Amino acid sequence: MEKIKDKKRTAVLLIHCPDKRGIVASVTDFLYKNNGNIIHLDQHVDREKKIFFMRVEWELDNFNIPDNEILKFFQYSIGKTFQMHSEIHFSEKVQRAAIFVSKISHCFYDVLSRYVSGEWQIEIPLIISNHNALEKVARLYGIDFHHIQINESNKAEQEQKELQLLQQYNIDFIVLARYMQILSGDFIRTFNKPIINIHHSFLPAFPGAKPYHCAYERGVKLIGATGHYVTTELDAGPIIEQDVVRVTHKHSIADLIRRGQDVEKMVLARAVWLHIHHMTLVYENRTIVFN
Amino acid sequence: MEKIKDKKRTAVLLIHCPDKRGIVASVTDFLYKNNGNIIHLDQHVDREKKIFFMRVEWELDNFNIPDNEILKFFQYSIGKTFQMHSEIHFSEKVQRAAIFVSKISHCFYDVLSRYVSGEWQIEIPLIISNHNALEKVARLYGIDFHHIQINESNKAEQEQKELQLLQQYNIDFIVLARYMQILSGDFIRTFNKPIINIHHSFLPAFPGAKPYHCAYERGVKLIGATGHYVTTELDAGPIIEQDVVRVTHKHSIADLIRRGQDVEKMVLARAVWLHIHHMTLVYENRTIVFN
Amino acid sequence: MEKIKDKKRTAVLLIHCPDKRGIVASVTDFLYKNNGNIIHLDQHVDREKKIFFMRVEWELDNFNIPDNEILKFFQYSIGKTFQMHSEIHFSEKVQRAAIFVSKISHCFYDVLSRYVSGEWQIEIPLIISNHNALEKVARLYGIDFHHIQINESNKAEQEQKELQLLQQYNIDFIVLARYMQILSGDFIRTFNKPIINIHHSFLPAFPGAKPYHCAYERGVKLIGATGHYVTTELDAGPIIEQDVVRVTHKHSIADLIRRGQDVEKMVLARAVWLHIHHMTLVYENRTIVFN
Amino acid sequence: MEKIKDKKRTAVLLIHCPDKRGIVASVTDFLYKNNGNIIHLDQHVDREKKIFFMRVEWELDNFNIPDNEILKFFQYSIGKTFQMHSEIHFSEKVQRAAIFVSKISHCFYDVLSRYVSGEWQIEIPLIISNHNALEKVARLYGIDFHHIQINESNKAEQEQKELQLLQQYNIDFIVLARYMQILSGDFIRTFNKPIINIHHSFLPAFPGAKPYHCAYERGVKLIGATGHYVTTELDAGPIIEQDVVRVTHKHSIADLIRRGQDVEKMVLARAVWLHIHHMTLVYENRTIVFN
Repeated sequence: MEKIKDKKRTAVLLIHCPDKRGIVASVTDFLYKNNGNIIHLDQHVDREKKIFFMRVEWELDNFNIPDNEILKFFQYSIGKTFQMHSEIHFSEKVQRAAIFVSKISHCFYDVLSRYVSGEWQIEIPLIISNHNALEKVARLYGIDFHHIQINESNKAEQEQKELQLLQQYNIDFIVLARYMQILSGDFIRTFNKPIINIHHSFLPAFPGAKPYHCAYERGVKLIGATGHYVTTELDAGPIIEQDVVRVTHKHSIADLIRRGQDVEKMVLARAVWLHIHHMTLVYENRTIVFN
Repeated sequence: MEKIKDKKRTAVLLIHCPDKRGIVASVTDFLYKNNGNIIHLDQHVDREKKIFFMRVEWELDNFNIPDNEILKFFQYSIGKTFQMHSEIHFSEKVQRAAIFVSKISHCFYDVLSRYVSGEWQIEIPLIISNHNALEKVARLYGIDFHHIQINESNKAEQEQKELQLLQQYNIDFIVLARYMQILSGDFIRTFNKPIINIHHSFLPAFPGAKPYHCAYERGVKLIGATGHYVTTELDAGPIIEQDVVRVTHKHSIADLIRRGQDVEKMVLARAVWLHIHHMTLVYENRTIVFN
Repeated sequence: MEKIKDKKRTAVLLIHCPDKRGIVASVTDFLYKNNGNIIHLDQHVDREKKIFFMRVEWELDNFNIPDNEILKFFQYSIGKTFQMHSEIHFSEKVQRAAIFVSKISHCFYDVLSRYVSGEWQIEIPLIISNHNALEKVARLYGIDFHHIQINESNKAEQEQKELQLLQQYNIDFIVLARYMQILSGDFIRTFNKPIINIHHSFLPAFPGAKPYHCAYERGVKLIGATGHYVTTELDAGPIIEQDVVRVTHKHSIADLIRRGQDVEKMVLARAVWLHIHHMTLVYENRTIVFN
Repeated sequence: MEKIKDKKRTAVLLIHCPDKRGIVASVTDFLYKNNGNIIHLDQHVDREKKIFFMRVEWELDNFNIPDNEILKFFQYSIGKTFQMHSEIHFSEKVQRAAIFVSKISHCFYDVLSRYVSGEWQIEIPLIISNHNALEKVARLYGIDFHHIQINESNKAEQEQKELQLLQQYNIDFIVLARYMQILSGDFIRTFNKPIINIHHSFLPAFPGAKPYHCAYERGVKLIGATGHYVTTELDAGPIIEQDVVRVTHKHSIADLIRRGQDVEKMVLARAVWLHIHHMTLVYENRTIVFN
């Protein structure tokens, strides 16, 4: 893929805690005192649940605290006081994604094109598929491709192989680019890192299999797609992004599938973009999107 | 309302029948031979169910057959052969709508503004409400307003009153402009004419009450509205029109309601527009929309 | 209109100044120290022009500084240091709008419905029109209506009358709800308060008169509307909100106008909503929209 | 690319002529009498210019007239009478496209993915570029790539080379997938077949170079893309498809470019889809889109 451009090094702090007066003042004062130049700050208060959320990004040049000490010092001086849950991310760290895919290729090609063009400044060292249909394409782009067939009887052991590969390749998050297998709860819990799925309907309408057939039967006038984090409950994880496209009675199921695929790949791409820029924060099955 | 402009008189024929070769040729030949000038023709074939659908509109000036004989003659010469279900509508006939409304007013005001501005060339002689909140507004515009309170014990008898009013005012179709009562199956069957409802969600997501609360809980990124014909199955009638609007985590339930109301009134208005121009044809719970 | 609900009193501070480290920390510290509870905070840095923008809203209950002293104290302690341009707004202050309208009524009815339903918590004491077509409607809602005819020879003197009315009714901002007159530079400069216009095209495409005719001629596949602040340069003021709707070759110019009107009234309503909630900040002909 | 599925052979007839009574009846009667089974029929009358347009598709199995005689016979029996301009297309004929591209790759990758996945049932035997950045990718997919550098002094002679290649590869239409060169009038006239361009703005707003910079300066709230047929007048050819995406003050020019690219590739893909299915008919710089 194309070379990463020179950019100033930044850090992103994602915070949530019980709402209280003075949080923004404390956090921004901490950054200011330590010589940090804020370039983005976004906050949100959930008034019903009385929870405060914040994303702040600042330039690390001349920041007083070394990268690996920032979170600790922040927790000492601010986090503890406000009972914060905090995480920190550094722009320098290139995230490593694994793509899971079956035979349907539109999301796969779209992900690859964003990767090789340098739009996404990440590494994709690993592709896993339950088919070998797309192996050749993966190899063209120099990405390791592992064909791991899964059926009812071998699921547990094959998922073990996948988990080993994920560890071996040091993967930070998984993108399910229309991977037609349901991940087991064990797999999800063991991997314990973000998994982004694209569901081919406007959830919660038409969860499960064959959503376009159901949409056709119901005679809806819009079809959609949903990018969400995977949880152990199928198609019920926190939604990152959704979009729709207009359809009419003229469209056959095949037309719905074709038109829907364009929405799917766009929604998946936007969800991944938000994730890799640390713009998402999940709280109780809802996704705060700082964009 | 503003005066209806002079326009050429037209007729609309809506047809469906088993698909077969020669239908379009036969119908258009019938119109041509009888001196009809086609101004719109739209057809659709449901390839799975093998059903042919058609809407054709033509100018009646110089048409050989008198209005009240057209459908009969058409059935003799064409309809029978193809086992057609046909209906005819005349542009001259001004349709009469009754508006059912509760207290929430946005759809109500929007309907009225389209009526009094002459955008909708219909008559609205009757408004029925289970509250009297909007009585004053109805009277300002010179429309009869009937306050018919409905509770669990009096529902059957109050619906009888409504049915009498609908008959007395010679009503062709009902618009439920956020009418917060469920019409009984008896009412729907007895009225036996089109009833258009606006549901405040993107069906089939969030049927029933409080859809915006559910949408908030689920953390969806788009909320929508659905205009549909009412059937005896709640929120499951054939969909005429749908639309959505983007929301974010920043929006409270009150914000969702407010943003959703704009979608509701637009979707209801488009559904009514399609209906009054005879652009809809219902077949097995799906709506063919000829637009 | 419906009664304003009890809500906590809040203040909104809108700021812009040259970008510099420590602005957010200083402002939020000022609010915290004076016992203000921030409920919304949004900031933006224009990296090219190196300008910092901010909107912060906080609850006034228990705030240490009396309302009429806040801006002064803020300028002393923070504003001066950072060379800020600041303005303050109070939720308690009910803004007073004048509506200017000609004969086309869709925006007018939509504005009225939002006003009388209480969606917009403002006062509309004055309607000015160059026609008397909508006088009756204005009076139904108890709003003063002034019919001020304008032609080439009397424009200067009639605009004087308008300015007197605006002063007499203590008007804070004007909404041009499809007012088909061009306001003179003198009028705009003398009024010297916000004027919101709805232009019936997706600016900068099709400025000036008859945009739908131009759109039809060009064969565009989307038509739009633009809500913007009025400046002395026609149709070139800072854009607040835009939207579009899909059209096809089947749509006549009359259809474009009808479909466009729905976009116009939605876009105007959203622009007014943003304005009355102090979510807009104009800088060099671009509008920062904090929403 | 993936194998073309078995489908019934069909023909598409595209017609326009002065509007007159009896055209649909005559055309459909012709097809019926010759044993054609209509699967799609769409017509449109431009009431201002009094022109009739029609697209009809029918199955060729058992059709009485051999393919290569249909248009001739149709002209004899129907076309002449109505002074029709008619063209016929056969589903069997696999169209051959050339892709012109510069260095920007998003449209290029998207076109390729639709080609290799079999979504587009066409041949792409030829890629021409004024850079060699994408040569490697072209070769991966086994497509001939010709690097033809163009500068002010060699334009005429290089365009000659391109025309020779287009002839040699028997190209039916060109897709300009963000090709940053302006084709000369001579080139367009000599090629004399359809050329589809994607312009990176919502035309007629921001024609010419750097539309995203202009959009940023103007502070628009939506940016768009336009797929159109190329004519000798720059960015003024008949529009096939357009779409937009929402932007805010937070988006830098780089963000506009990135967000715009997603719209560009979708709009180009839809325009190409309509073209290869013979759903477009150009008349006086407007495109009738039968979809």
